[in-house]
Amino acid sequence: MAAKPGIPKGTRDFSPVEMAKRNYIFNTIRDVYHLYGFQQIETPAMEMLSTLMGKYGDEGDKLLFKIQNSGDYFSGLTDEELLSRNAAKLASKFCEKGLRYDLTVPFARYVVMHRDEITFPFKRYQIQPVWRADRPQKGRYREFYQCDADVVGSDSLLNEVELMQIVDTVFSRFGIRVCIKINNRKILSGIAEIIGEADKIVDITVAIDKLDKIGLDNVNTELREKGISDEAIAKLQPIILLSGSNTEKLETLKNVLSASEIGMAGVEESEFILSTLHTMGLQNPIELDLTLARGLNYYTGAIFEVKALDVQIGSITGGGRYDNLTGVFGMSGVSGVGISFGADRIFDVLNQLDLYPKEAVNGTEVLFINFGAKEAAYSMNVLMQVRAAGICAELFPDAAKMKKQMSYANAKSIPFVAIVGENEMAEGKLMLKNMESGDQSLVTANELIAVVKK
Amino acid sequence: MAAKPGIPKGTRDFSPVEMAKRNYIFNTIRDVYHLYGFQQIETPAMEMLSTLMGKYGDEGDKLLFKIQNSGDYFSGLTDEELLSRNAAKLASKFCEKGLRYDLTVPFARYVVMHRDEITFPFKRYQIQPVWRADRPQKGRYREFYQCDADVVGSDSLLNEVELMQIVDTVFSRFGIRVCIKINNRKILSGIAEIIGEADKIVDITVAIDKLDKIGLDNVNTELREKGISDEAIAKLQPIILLSGSNTEKLETLKNVLSASEIGMAGVEESEFILSTLHTMGLQNPIELDLTLARGLNYYTGAIFEVKALDVQIGSITGGGRYDNLTGVFGMSGVSGVGISFGADRIFDVLNQLDLYPKEAVNGTEVLFINFGAKEAAYSMNVLMQVRAAGICAELFPDAAKMKKQMSYANAKSIPFVAIVGENEMAEGKLMLKNMESGDQSLVTANELIAVVKK
Repeated sequence: MAAKPGIPKGTRDFSPVEMAKRNYIFNTIRDVYHLYGFQQIETPAMEMLSTLMGKYGDEGDKLLFKIQNSGDYFSGLTDEELLSRNAAKLASKFCEKGLRYDLTVPFARYVVMHRDEITFPFKRYQIQPVWRADRPQKGRYREFYQCDADVVGSDSLLNEVELMQIVDTVFSRFGIRVCIKINNRKILSGIAEIIGEADKIVDITVAIDKLDKIGLDNVNTELREKGISDEAIAKLQPIILLSGSNTEKLETLKNVLSASEIGMAGVEESEFILSTLHTMGLQNPIELDLTLARGLNYYTGAIFEVKALDVQIGSITGGGRYDNLTGVFGMSGVSGVGISFGADRIFDVLNQLDLYPKEAVNGTEVLFINFGAKEAAYSMNVLMQVRAAGICAELFPDAAKMKKQMSYANAKSIPFVAIVGENEMAEGKLMLKNMESGDQSLVTANELIAVVKK
Repeated sequence: MAAKPGIPKGTRDFSPVEMAKRNYIFNTIRDVYHLYGFQQIETPAMEMLSTLMGKYGDEGDKLLFKIQNSGDYFSGLTDEELLSRNAAKLASKFCEKGLRYDLTVPFARYVVMHRDEITFPFKRYQIQPVWRADRPQKGRYREFYQCDADVVGSDSLLNEVELMQIVDTVFSRFGIRVCIKINNRKILSGIAEIIGEADKIVDITVAIDKLDKIGLDNVNTELREKGISDEAIAKLQPIILLSGSNTEKLETLKNVLSASEIGMAGVEESEFILSTLHTMGLQNPIELDLTLARGLNYYTGAIFEVKALDVQIGSITGGGRYDNLTGVFGMSGVSGVGISFGADRIFDVLNQLDLYPKEAVNGTEVLFINFGAKEAAYSMNVLMQVRAAGICAELFPDAAKMKKQMSYANAKSIPFVAIVGENEMAEGKLMLKNMESGDQSLVTANELIAVVKK
């Protein structure tokens, strides 16, 4: 007796219904990317470890899945090296390849390798799985898809504007109400410059974020505890209390940051993005939020994040502008801006709000019941017409008990069942049953097509 | 200066144009699978090595990509074991996971793990990459996609019929002229039984296959050299010389195989499949071909293969019926029948015959030239209408030189360019240029939509 098989922890099988839902998500995002002129690329699941290592910090290096070299992976290793049992060090001897950890580093590698074929600005999107040897937990997987779009080779803020339009369109199509949050790394740098505490910017945003919950006094106490001077805290007050419309916030920031060149640049960029989007009209609110501090080591300009309004869940999309995507591979001067939709979280949100459109999840539309060889032959001919009309349809392959065939239709949520017996064949028709209403009617093949297509 | 990055040998990046072509292939296959009621599943890239090992023979085990365990993979290993430097044996200590080698074993594992949720017959398809540490060579890659469809849990030959219809429909949609070859393992077993040379069946099919090239005498000589008795060779003559229509071939086989129960079963199955398909009418020829002997260790009934008629290339699709898909995982009695489209070869055939439909490969349909902030703002508003009408369009993000923007349109094969200057804005219109004909006309946004959609 063979052992019951399992799958690696942190990985998942996707059933037909889950796949239909996931495809709906990917296709919606893909369609909008196409509308905006983004083109798809794919890169291999395996990259050279020399490409991946050192790009995600020490912690990231540990989370790379490494692939053992084929053949004799011991060659060139001394007994001493082997007996050192230094797992991390020997891994680089045993393995030269690893699974991709995100889509950004492979994209940077792609841009460098294909620089001569690419016409810049390059608007690419990529929807592929990534792998991380993270400790699995609820909502965190070792294999998951990323859906990234980036524009590289253009400094224009119109790219930021279009990415926000993409976000707005995608979530409108999903029917998920969201708030788009926007910030700018340059504003944060300006704040740090003004108060002379450049290294405390994360502490500051964390504290500001608590204003609603703990009140101003406690925020100031927390800032003091983090070692921020009273003078700096005084200067921070208008920023902590920043409120009102985006325009009002920007006015306040212009006053506070007037002495910081970089801060003012961030304000101007945000002003352009927000006012352009205001003119265009988004379906979802967009809000300047200084507490947004994702990827501070990476982003150099605008930073985005999207929050679902009707479900308690973390950020469901994020992104920003970065300089020097490809510098680490020896190609400088390539800046870009990108977004990444969190497909797994969007999946959960759509499930919780029950927002999947029926037609996205439905598969087969008509099941033909099989009563035997003659009826099956008759049905196969009708099926050809039905499928030629673009209707997904199937014949139960075996002349099984009616009950079994009906259960099959139910299990697959097939909305119509076609029943063909002696009488129907004699008349050149078939009995079409609506599985939801229970209504039955005797129809021709063309009538069936009309009813199902409706 | 960083080293120039590369990718693992045998793997590929896919550029936007390649991706568009590949998506056209996958979408065409997927659409037809859906029409026939197949549902998609996905399984993880990584499987437990216990799931994969021993399923593909010794050679296959060596070609598995193994993933090094995270953390201290030396634990539990003695110094002696380490110093033995037995790469194959220690791999199983260092690694417990591997990349999937095909879609069949993961599917079998899926069926066993999800048996309680699955309603049989289960019509599943799966389009995912697989990985093999094969020696890379022209047309053979270490990462490639498989596009499999299988029906499990039904013995009905209608499944074979429908799979042939699927093959016929897919290649008709591609515009690739093919010959569908069909054989049956039971016929081959019958032949072996009749001539008393059960273990020589592959030698026999190889020899028969050479009839056209080397003539009957040389075929018989080769059979004799393979150790087949004169008596058996005499009995084989009608089979070697088998020709004519499928019906004629089946008549000959009925005579030759009349004493073999299994042989006659194979003839009857083939007769049913071919005559049903004849009634339905295929667009491509289907031919009973006894030299078809793929997967003899695996297939137990019908065997299929598809050959392109206008390009010299190996089989571009194949499949067959198998018993006991899941026995190795402790679940017996699950038989099935499946096909697998060879996406990489189909890609090559479509390229060689230049059969990609324009709309499948095209991306952006209109590029708006950027002359500056005011013109860009005007264009962004028109773009909203154009995209809302479902047209893929973009604005060049920077006010770069006209020549650079036109080169961009050319490089991306964008068929229309919209030019917006002072005059156009004053009139509330834009100049639309057809990049192929060079024609220009002053149009409104709605007129642009109508022209581009035509």
